[in-house]
Amino acid sequence: MGSKANGEEAEFRTESDSFGPLRVPNDKYYGANTARSMKNFEIGGESEKMPLPIIHAFGILKKAAAEVNQEYDLDPKIASAISQAAQEVTDGRLNDHFPLVVWQTGSGTQSNMNVNEVIANRAIEMLGGVLGSKTPVHPNDHVNKSQSSNDTFPTAMHIAVAMEIRRCLLPGLQLLLVTLKDKAQEFKDIIKIGRTHTQDATPLTLGQEFSGYVQQIENGVERVKSTLPRLYQLAAGGTAVGTGLNTRIGFAEKIAEKISDITGLPFVTAPNKFEALAAHDSMVEVHGALNTIACSLMKIANDIRFLGSGPRCGLGELMLPENEPGSSIMPGKINPTQCEAITMVAAQVMGNHVAVTVGGSNGHFELNVFKPMMVRNVLQSIRLIGDASVSFANNCVVEIQPNKDRIEQLLNDSLMLVTALNPHIGYDNAGKIAKHAHKSGLTLKQAAVELGLLTEQQFNDWVKPENMLGPN
Amino acid sequence: MGSKANGEEAEFRTESDSFGPLRVPNDKYYGANTARSMKNFEIGGESEKMPLPIIHAFGILKKAAAEVNQEYDLDPKIASAISQAAQEVTDGRLNDHFPLVVWQTGSGTQSNMNVNEVIANRAIEMLGGVLGSKTPVHPNDHVNKSQSSNDTFPTAMHIAVAMEIRRCLLPGLQLLLVTLKDKAQEFKDIIKIGRTHTQDATPLTLGQEFSGYVQQIENGVERVKSTLPRLYQLAAGGTAVGTGLNTRIGFAEKIAEKISDITGLPFVTAPNKFEALAAHDSMVEVHGALNTIACSLMKIANDIRFLGSGPRCGLGELMLPENEPGSSIMPGKINPTQCEAITMVAAQVMGNHVAVTVGGSNGHFELNVFKPMMVRNVLQSIRLIGDASVSFANNCVVEIQPNKDRIEQLLNDSLMLVTALNPHIGYDNAGKIAKHAHKSGLTLKQAAVELGLLTEQQFNDWVKPENMLGPN
Amino acid sequence: MGSKANGEEAEFRTESDSFGPLRVPNDKYYGANTARSMKNFEIGGESEKMPLPIIHAFGILKKAAAEVNQEYDLDPKIASAISQAAQEVTDGRLNDHFPLVVWQTGSGTQSNMNVNEVIANRAIEMLGGVLGSKTPVHPNDHVNKSQSSNDTFPTAMHIAVAMEIRRCLLPGLQLLLVTLKDKAQEFKDIIKIGRTHTQDATPLTLGQEFSGYVQQIENGVERVKSTLPRLYQLAAGGTAVGTGLNTRIGFAEKIAEKISDITGLPFVTAPNKFEALAAHDSMVEVHGALNTIACSLMKIANDIRFLGSGPRCGLGELMLPENEPGSSIMPGKINPTQCEAITMVAAQVMGNHVAVTVGGSNGHFELNVFKPMMVRNVLQSIRLIGDASVSFANNCVVEIQPNKDRIEQLLNDSLMLVTALNPHIGYDNAGKIAKHAHKSGLTLKQAAVELGLLTEQQFNDWVKPENMLGPN
Amino acid sequence: MGSKANGEEAEFRTESDSFGPLRVPNDKYYGANTARSMKNFEIGGESEKMPLPIIHAFGILKKAAAEVNQEYDLDPKIASAISQAAQEVTDGRLNDHFPLVVWQTGSGTQSNMNVNEVIANRAIEMLGGVLGSKTPVHPNDHVNKSQSSNDTFPTAMHIAVAMEIRRCLLPGLQLLLVTLKDKAQEFKDIIKIGRTHTQDATPLTLGQEFSGYVQQIENGVERVKSTLPRLYQLAAGGTAVGTGLNTRIGFAEKIAEKISDITGLPFVTAPNKFEALAAHDSMVEVHGALNTIACSLMKIANDIRFLGSGPRCGLGELMLPENEPGSSIMPGKINPTQCEAITMVAAQVMGNHVAVTVGGSNGHFELNVFKPMMVRNVLQSIRLIGDASVSFANNCVVEIQPNKDRIEQLLNDSLMLVTALNPHIGYDNAGKIAKHAHKSGLTLKQAAVELGLLTEQQFNDWVKPENMLGPN
Repeated sequence: MGSKANGEEAEFRTESDSFGPLRVPNDKYYGANTARSMKNFEIGGESEKMPLPIIHAFGILKKAAAEVNQEYDLDPKIASAISQAAQEVTDGRLNDHFPLVVWQTGSGTQSNMNVNEVIANRAIEMLGGVLGSKTPVHPNDHVNKSQSSNDTFPTAMHIAVAMEIRRCLLPGLQLLLVTLKDKAQEFKDIIKIGRTHTQDATPLTLGQEFSGYVQQIENGVERVKSTLPRLYQLAAGGTAVGTGLNTRIGFAEKIAEKISDITGLPFVTAPNKFEALAAHDSMVEVHGALNTIACSLMKIANDIRFLGSGPRCGLGELMLPENEPGSSIMPGKINPTQCEAITMVAAQVMGNHVAVTVGGSNGHFELNVFKPMMVRNVLQSIRLIGDASVSFANNCVVEIQPNKDRIEQLLNDSLMLVTALNPHIGYDNAGKIAKHAHKSGLTLKQAAVELGLLTEQQFNDWVKPENMLGPN
Repeated sequence: MGSKANGEEAEFRTESDSFGPLRVPNDKYYGANTARSMKNFEIGGESEKMPLPIIHAFGILKKAAAEVNQEYDLDPKIASAISQAAQEVTDGRLNDHFPLVVWQTGSGTQSNMNVNEVIANRAIEMLGGVLGSKTPVHPNDHVNKSQSSNDTFPTAMHIAVAMEIRRCLLPGLQLLLVTLKDKAQEFKDIIKIGRTHTQDATPLTLGQEFSGYVQQIENGVERVKSTLPRLYQLAAGGTAVGTGLNTRIGFAEKIAEKISDITGLPFVTAPNKFEALAAHDSMVEVHGALNTIACSLMKIANDIRFLGSGPRCGLGELMLPENEPGSSIMPGKINPTQCEAITMVAAQVMGNHVAVTVGGSNGHFELNVFKPMMVRNVLQSIRLIGDASVSFANNCVVEIQPNKDRIEQLLNDSLMLVTALNPHIGYDNAGKIAKHAHKSGLTLKQAAVELGLLTEQQFNDWVKPENMLGPN
Repeated sequence: MGSKANGEEAEFRTESDSFGPLRVPNDKYYGANTARSMKNFEIGGESEKMPLPIIHAFGILKKAAAEVNQEYDLDPKIASAISQAAQEVTDGRLNDHFPLVVWQTGSGTQSNMNVNEVIANRAIEMLGGVLGSKTPVHPNDHVNKSQSSNDTFPTAMHIAVAMEIRRCLLPGLQLLLVTLKDKAQEFKDIIKIGRTHTQDATPLTLGQEFSGYVQQIENGVERVKSTLPRLYQLAAGGTAVGTGLNTRIGFAEKIAEKISDITGLPFVTAPNKFEALAAHDSMVEVHGALNTIACSLMKIANDIRFLGSGPRCGLGELMLPENEPGSSIMPGKINPTQCEAITMVAAQVMGNHVAVTVGGSNGHFELNVFKPMMVRNVLQSIRLIGDASVSFANNCVVEIQPNKDRIEQLLNDSLMLVTALNPHIGYDNAGKIAKHAHKSGLTLKQAAVELGLLTEQQFNDWVKPENMLGPN
Repeated sequence: MGSKANGEEAEFRTESDSFGPLRVPNDKYYGANTARSMKNFEIGGESEKMPLPIIHAFGILKKAAAEVNQEYDLDPKIASAISQAAQEVTDGRLNDHFPLVVWQTGSGTQSNMNVNEVIANRAIEMLGGVLGSKTPVHPNDHVNKSQSSNDTFPTAMHIAVAMEIRRCLLPGLQLLLVTLKDKAQEFKDIIKIGRTHTQDATPLTLGQEFSGYVQQIENGVERVKSTLPRLYQLAAGGTAVGTGLNTRIGFAEKIAEKISDITGLPFVTAPNKFEALAAHDSMVEVHGALNTIACSLMKIANDIRFLGSGPRCGLGELMLPENEPGSSIMPGKINPTQCEAITMVAAQVMGNHVAVTVGGSNGHFELNVFKPMMVRNVLQSIRLIGDASVSFANNCVVEIQPNKDRIEQLLNDSLMLVTALNPHIGYDNAGKIAKHAHKSGLTLKQAAVELGLLTEQQFNDWVKPENMLGPN
């Protein structure tokens, strides 16, 4: 970025926007709009910065815009410099030049301008110009050409979310799915007591129990996918209010195609740009799928920690991996920490969903101005679910072992095997046996025979856990 | 239901369950399980009763079960009586016999037993037996044959929700969609100022503005439909824990087919019964679509009330129908009451979504025991959205008239037409014109000429609202 | 209400509002505003009616208003008739005359007019006039004198909520509190294994465990009470926009005092009427306390059902009462149904909280128009928590019995007693003992001695559960 | 931290926990527990790190613990070194040594150990020992003495939240409160049209309108304060399960007093440690206050942006400061960006509230394991509300100017002044005037006279906005 002079004076240059001049650090590509936003929105600090996937998605968008603009009338030299600078943004090489927080203009205007400024200055630099001079590359007239924050920010939202779904969410879920499926297969012959209402119930195999989790994750993947058609619709080309003012006929279609080419995802131009700017129902919808997945993960992880509870005073059917010391005071304690991490993630996702919903419901007229907040939550939820699924699969699920002795002991103790007698002696009689065994501390067989409702032989013939695992 | 004797004694009969005898009113078909639940769950009172769509769905299920059981080994006379009684349940003729509240066992066991008891007694009555005798029709052994609350209640949930979506939700949304579409068409030539950030922006047509709402509702319908594949999966045949114990091979498939025949909806047997009992992610998913629709409705109704605000001190672009006196103190006041009803509905749906989510995430092992609460919220949201959409369409949207004079006056006053100058004189110069006009109270044209940035002729040529409605 | 003629014609009379005449049933006291609302808001049906506590609170308010108005200039005869009719409303004798649903005007105007109409007609009847004639008692000019829907509805909201808190919520929580406290006392000498992360931990007494629940409910009561100062502030006297237009100086203070006298609750006039109409933060705040209580109840009920899980394959430390047959397929099954009801209630309350929050955040200018929805949710949550607490206390908690054998067995099996060795041999050595015992299936003592880290005597001296129940 | 050797080998040292040895970077003070957690929880990346206020609060806690432990039996030299190292943690000088993310063990055990390790190593360093040697300062036996993660993490939660409330939340709200109050005073004589249902209503002063906002924020401060009694209760002394095992009698009280001394906040020892570990209702309660404040802020900021909408096609009663260019495409556009930032914050807080609620409801037995997630959300909400309030006050509210011409013009145009006629000619007649004026485009006076309902003189005498601002 050029050499810095020694004196403090030299460490800043002056840039200006329509509000006037402002000093910006010499080692940053951003300009006056960005600097002004930093001053006006001191909210939340470092950890509240605009998520990088949005910045990188903007790089893709700006590159695509430059190339399409060139097809119309943008000077190829300028277009090419923009395109190269935009690529650097996407590649993460300019991450340090995006200091703005989420809590800014609700349209993300300042982040769009931050991108325009960084790309313009970097392109100017490539072309040998002076930073901040806006020539030969102007952040608005060239980098933002045929665009408005109002259509670029939602476009970046859709690109970023779609790419993170592909990069992080789906592979994470897929790994968890495969890992659970393997376990379901591995456990397919282990017969265990079922539990309904947390109480002893009729038996099933441990494999069947895990197959329910498999189905939940499988459905989760389907749920995400079923939202994608609307996520793949891009606002680009709608400009300020959705009409496409100051764009050229065909621009919207071409830029969607270009973005599709760059990303390898089937983006299309949104059928209605007014909706695409004024509402972000698509974000709410996508997050609805994440919210459902959060429910699944909470359920699965809760089951696993309870089934693995103990080691001596819990249900103890599963042995979870010992990954770290469990307690700073209780020596030797092992905790289901991966379950805890992923259930915390699930709770966060449920909360994020409400934030997205509230933001999504509060758009007005031609523009929803909860954009940065909405996409921040969607991206966080995607990342957390994706990462936590990998962590949960690799550090917990894959290493789960059944405690076969314990499982068998509980199965044999159970009273609910009595259900197998319903077709033979009726619900009411079967109930008498169970109650008698419960009250007197007998086994079912002892109770049945003691009550004279059936013979030991009949009991042995009729009550076989291995025959209780499916219809007959 | 037979004649009642005079004495008070005669007004009750004794029924019993496995816990012993209990008095039930002679004019009710329900039995001891139901009476016991009424005693044990005095929570919330009248308005908290199990929603009727669930009861009616249970009728369908019990009829289907009887007919399928007959294909195996159920006495045709009993099956037929059950089937007829179940039909009466579905037809709503026995509504008064279902007194239980939502806040009972989380599996809905008591409502399943309520249905079993009512059908058994009604069938007994048809066959000339004695109410409460459990012969010749036993509530468990016959009406509940091959079933468990654990699979019947979720089956009834799916049937009820799917039927209410068809009966109430989709037609309501469809009416609103068509009504909005007609308005979008009717308003297609009315050019008006756009508003972003609630501030004046570039123009669009009123038809374009409404087309965004059309797209939102259209997407909403798509969103609901995209959840149906998993809603159409029925738990029936899973019995107690998902294994299908005490059913016959083929029962699950047959009963799903039978229910599909009866309802005309493409129900299938759930591919994994463990998931179908232990999780209700499908409810969370369906409600996720409702939640997204709630966001759309909130947005649309907010826009309409603000665009219709006034009559003299608001935006005043739309004239909403005057449906009722608006104020008990301010004479002549008219309020956007339909907008208010539907936005209240939207808020309720967003809340219900969290209740469903919390319930959905808290299942344990082989059974989720938040079933009645979950389905209550889904059904309420469906009904409220469906009804409110009809009310909003018929009592508000269809009668919306544009205030053309007001719309034109605002359009002409606006400063944001300046955007049309960007391609001609650049963003920075265009900004100077807008600011100058704003500060000095001038029209844009006056400001432009005064600043010497373009001629009046150029202004007239370049700034034409009718040319600002799309790409060029 | 006078005799009805035979012909159908005679069953209706004509009433009118500023929109014109409308037929209303002869056997109802309501008038045209109400009838018009029924036509315009066909949303949700029977179960969605305005909650009765609101109607009854309106009776109190109208009575107070009549009496205060009389102190200024209202004809005492009219005031007295209004007062009597209003009393009948409060007493629930006119419940059938309030057919409107929640989903109406967001200010509750139509319910206010419903009340005005019913009281006016009932007062007219008392005074020998003709129903619908509006003389000698006019619904607006007399019953609504010095009032607006905008201040009466929020006043009724605060009255209804405060009264339901007193009538239902606090007694319910109090009963639960006392019941839990008795149990904590009863269980104070039963030493049991603790569980953290669902895993075995150091011991505590069952009484200590229950004392945590006691504290939660005690805090819950405090939380509700800490919101009351703002709930006791009444909007009455603010009329249309908060200024108090068309009221007399002193009216606001007098009516608050009158309402305080009638109800025995310390109501005061709101210090700022603009806030009292335009925002319902107080409802959000009160519901925030309910939401926190919901968390407590979920936690407590979850604990109890898990501690009572079994009877043979669960934790089995508690024996819960057997209230009803637990399963329609599994004979003899007993389920923690009261836990299920109250946790479903908790989930509903969490959802309602979001509905209230969304409504509370969406007020505009001088009026929040989510009033009926907001108060409906607050009242439902109060009722459900209050009723469910009573049900849970009486049908579950009071009858909980410890399974002492089981508790002792688990305590002795546990490995976490090793923590008592930390001060003697250090965390690292203690950890070795626990791990060795776990791996080899030994008791702690065996493992300790086998590892040579301490003698049997030392173990016996140092590891005493009864010494692990507090600081030393 | 000592010099680093050149070779790569030298850049790491070996530390060990009960699971064995692990390499840690030489330039970090943390040890094996921390390094292990980094490996096991690769979730979310940089922006998901444990919030610094928690780390700093841990410093306070560890310092207090060392000093209290010294009062019992901890070697003064060790205690002093721990105390100094802990102070450095609190001062933020060791921030770089806390790499762990929120998504770890739900008890925060690993962050507690991270603190223990950093303090131990830093203290060892001060005492001339070898990093990682655990002598003379052991992370568990000395730094964590008399403590468990289970009581330290909740203690740190309460300290951090209370301190951030004092440092950030309350001053932010206070500034906003004062700023609004000044505006209310400044605007006290500006009479303007009121708006209910977004429709024209009776007049009030702009000062009255703002006084409602003042009341909301004032109440908000009260709401936060009313939650503090329970926030000031500290879990410290409860150790593993709440019994206080391995602490000394008096430790709990002493450490609370010490923490109170250090922080200047009235912390006390929690009356029930079982509740303090197993539930975090206090976090839910505090966040309930934040949630209510979020509703207030959403309402206020929405009002301000709508009242400031325009500049030419909106309500236009307020002129908001022009802080930055509003649009990347529409030159000269100014947007209510501070309103947007703070309403986005409000939406986030509402979402966070649900995350906290879900976490708070899901504790089991002796420990809630959603601690890091819960406190993260509470701290974020505090910070965002505090910062955004300052930004909103300084960059928006303080500079709001009334557009007096516009305000007066709207007031005079309004029809709702007719309400002043109710006491003179009755509601029905007044309504006729308003409707006639509306239909015919007349002023109220013209309509009144034209209908012959009163004379011009009467109108002038009775309809005076300045007389409509309060009771008479």
